[in-house]
Amino acid sequence: MSKFSAINLLLFGAMGDLALRKIYPALYHLDLECLLADNTRILCLARKEMFIDIFKIKIIDSLKKYVEKKYIYDKYITKFINKFFYIEIDFLNFFYYKKIYIWIKERDELPNIIYLSVPSNLFGIICDNLNVSGCIKKDSRVVVEKPIGSNFETSIKINNIIGKFFEEKNIYRIDHYLGKYTVQNILALRFANPVFYNQWNRKYISHVEITVAESVGIEGRWSYFDHAGQLRDMVQNHIMQLLCIITMEPPRTIDANSIRDEKVKVLKALRTIEGKLLFSNVVYGQYTNGICENKKVPGYNEEKEANIFSKTETFVALKTEILNCRWAGVPFYLRTGKRMPKKLSQIVIHFRKKAYEVFNTNGKLYSNKLIIRLQPNEGISLEIINKDSLFSEKGINWCGYMNIDFNSKYNRIPDAYENLFLEIIKGNQYLFVRRDEVEYSWRWIDKIIYGLKKCISQPEYYSAGSWGPNSSITMIHNSGHTWEDCSLY
Amino acid sequence: MSKFSAINLLLFGAMGDLALRKIYPALYHLDLECLLADNTRILCLARKEMFIDIFKIKIIDSLKKYVEKKYIYDKYITKFINKFFYIEIDFLNFFYYKKIYIWIKERDELPNIIYLSVPSNLFGIICDNLNVSGCIKKDSRVVVEKPIGSNFETSIKINNIIGKFFEEKNIYRIDHYLGKYTVQNILALRFANPVFYNQWNRKYISHVEITVAESVGIEGRWSYFDHAGQLRDMVQNHIMQLLCIITMEPPRTIDANSIRDEKVKVLKALRTIEGKLLFSNVVYGQYTNGICENKKVPGYNEEKEANIFSKTETFVALKTEILNCRWAGVPFYLRTGKRMPKKLSQIVIHFRKKAYEVFNTNGKLYSNKLIIRLQPNEGISLEIINKDSLFSEKGINWCGYMNIDFNSKYNRIPDAYENLFLEIIKGNQYLFVRRDEVEYSWRWIDKIIYGLKKCISQPEYYSAGSWGPNSSITMIHNSGHTWEDCSLY
Repeated sequence: MSKFSAINLLLFGAMGDLALRKIYPALYHLDLECLLADNTRILCLARKEMFIDIFKIKIIDSLKKYVEKKYIYDKYITKFINKFFYIEIDFLNFFYYKKIYIWIKERDELPNIIYLSVPSNLFGIICDNLNVSGCIKKDSRVVVEKPIGSNFETSIKINNIIGKFFEEKNIYRIDHYLGKYTVQNILALRFANPVFYNQWNRKYISHVEITVAESVGIEGRWSYFDHAGQLRDMVQNHIMQLLCIITMEPPRTIDANSIRDEKVKVLKALRTIEGKLLFSNVVYGQYTNGICENKKVPGYNEEKEANIFSKTETFVALKTEILNCRWAGVPFYLRTGKRMPKKLSQIVIHFRKKAYEVFNTNGKLYSNKLIIRLQPNEGISLEIINKDSLFSEKGINWCGYMNIDFNSKYNRIPDAYENLFLEIIKGNQYLFVRRDEVEYSWRWIDKIIYGLKKCISQPEYYSAGSWGPNSSITMIHNSGHTWEDCSLY
Repeated sequence: MSKFSAINLLLFGAMGDLALRKIYPALYHLDLECLLADNTRILCLARKEMFIDIFKIKIIDSLKKYVEKKYIYDKYITKFINKFFYIEIDFLNFFYYKKIYIWIKERDELPNIIYLSVPSNLFGIICDNLNVSGCIKKDSRVVVEKPIGSNFETSIKINNIIGKFFEEKNIYRIDHYLGKYTVQNILALRFANPVFYNQWNRKYISHVEITVAESVGIEGRWSYFDHAGQLRDMVQNHIMQLLCIITMEPPRTIDANSIRDEKVKVLKALRTIEGKLLFSNVVYGQYTNGICENKKVPGYNEEKEANIFSKTETFVALKTEILNCRWAGVPFYLRTGKRMPKKLSQIVIHFRKKAYEVFNTNGKLYSNKLIIRLQPNEGISLEIINKDSLFSEKGINWCGYMNIDFNSKYNRIPDAYENLFLEIIKGNQYLFVRRDEVEYSWRWIDKIIYGLKKCISQPEYYSAGSWGPNSSITMIHNSGHTWEDCSLY
């Protein structure tokens, strides 16, 4: 028996990549953990005409592909698959929505969760049809995925459309980074641990790095990506969420609006990057061919479907600042790119150096780093200075890491979508992005994107398999810092 | 080629237990690491008449017994043993000292290091004879072991005797705890790491525990130990040194006198335990028979040679305070005992709780602990609070440890005596105890010992294999604290 109430999940885009790779495996794991109530129903909606048995076979096949083998039990698969229903639907045709209405009517009343795993230009027509056919109730929740628009204006439009049918308290905008255990744990790290809580400000922290590196390239999505670029695809959502969680003031309690109020305050306090700062504080790169993870790979402009004149950025490094009492003067370095040497997401908190060393260090001053590893090797490391062993004349000079490793604590760290689904079912929005977060985030990103458009004639090129253009290194060096050497992990 | 200069080591008590178990293995390891200059000479002095070859065989046998097998190489043993000389000596007879004088004269001039591994009542006669025979030069160093007396008065006498022949800057009083890597590393931990340096005071630290637990009992030294007791044998030296290193102000530099000046300031600032405090802040225990490390063991009064009326303490727990700006109001809990469940030395720094939790913790307030493990499993752990995994309603509530483990960094952590010898050779006193440290330490201990004598009729009994008398737990509970659960490691 699950401790959570049953729901009707109406999943639009039920045969899409996200559904197969993420949504079904997540629901399956929740079911394995007895967290889906028995009478939970998953109504899958897609364009294809299909018998329910054929559909179920497809779902089972995809579970076997995307769920780790050791969690595949026929008994549980059977139990899980019995929760599934399928209705063929033309999203644009009102007629099909009556079928949904009837499906709902024929069953016990349960809260509806409407998951729109479809392009955002369909949100309006789907919601309208659902509404007219009587499928949206007062407590119906809607779940949407990024991108919420491609700039401030278009995000407003999309949010207005959804807002016409749902109250903000029922809208669940997914940024899957917020579902990651390691990201949520940052709140515990910061707010439950006096050792860190006491030093989480400009007095003790010198600068902060956030790196989200992918080793993959475009993965067959060239056209989609080329319209977006790394700033829209990675910075506006994931990296800015990480930045908010790392820097926000303590919320009064861990409820959705207290947390989101604090995140919005950070977004408002971000120094706008415009004018001269577009040159000094932004590195804008595109990968050329090279060797990545021991494989020869093509450049961005040589990928399938590529337009060789594209100036879209596949790498971006930014230096920014948060203009408030806690953080003024502390540089935040953000970087993300495709075709980096490895997949790696981490946050590095650099504590301020001491002003004076009692050890004979020839003028070198020591400091500490806290490294929050989101992936791989999920965990936290504190770099500390230790005494050299016997036999060293220097007396003190090796850096070691105090480590905690979440993989050794948990048999399995649940996927972000499992956490997210559980909160949707519970009706807790604290892992979801509020409308004003989306909007303030776009405002800040828009300034950079439109600013760059005017002044940058082409991206700086970097070889696939490198850590981005050299000027990314120069930018951080100019402030007296260096990127954490990511080859260490 | 060693980078350090050669020395003549004059070792009195060359067949003693300490020499065999600690001194020769330490010198051997230093030689293996090429840290003993080639022309270093070790002149062994003992009562027994022996041919040098027989003596060398004994040394080799004992090396094979006390040095880990994988470090025993015949080639190096041969090289090492060539540094050895032996002179039979009656410590009381001046005649034998002439032999030492001649031995020195026949060789190149090298600094003499006179190691008195003999009972302190022999110090005077040996030094006098050495002096008269011309063996003590201006730069000769003398090394002495604890105990330096059995109280303030007797320590003065011993220090005066040594002081007649050697300047303080040439006197090396060993407290072997100071030679331990993990103890020396406390200086690095405290003074080179801003994350800890910034919080090392009463504002951030709530209380501190120091535990030195032995699982052994009396080990055939009943009479010796019965005259001393745990306060003299363990607290006056090792534990008070640990306390000083954990709490001293930063020295200006890491030189011997800057460090020792700061340690003395701590000793002067210790709250005297007298009057009512003898009842509330001291637990005074003696073990009875019990089960220790899965073996039935006799009580203290049932050991060989035991006097069943002995009231000598084999366990002591103290609560004290340091009356200065950094520490006033922070309780320091010290405990040490024999026949504890395991051999364990550690220091636990308890950071202050937060005043308010943003997490829903039903009023529980979180804090952090820093655990400095001196032995076994040498390392440092920081206990931190983490978010519960998915599926927990509480949201946040597991404690994990960020660890650094020195055994995995070093193939071998050198023994304390290796560090100590190296510093003696280098002529650096920073790991050795200055005269005023000995004296202030005895003054504080004497107050307790003589105070207890007047008011305590008998020790509290505890079973061998337990963590001491219950009142040790009550004492710390009365201040709202608990002993760190040592069964965790």
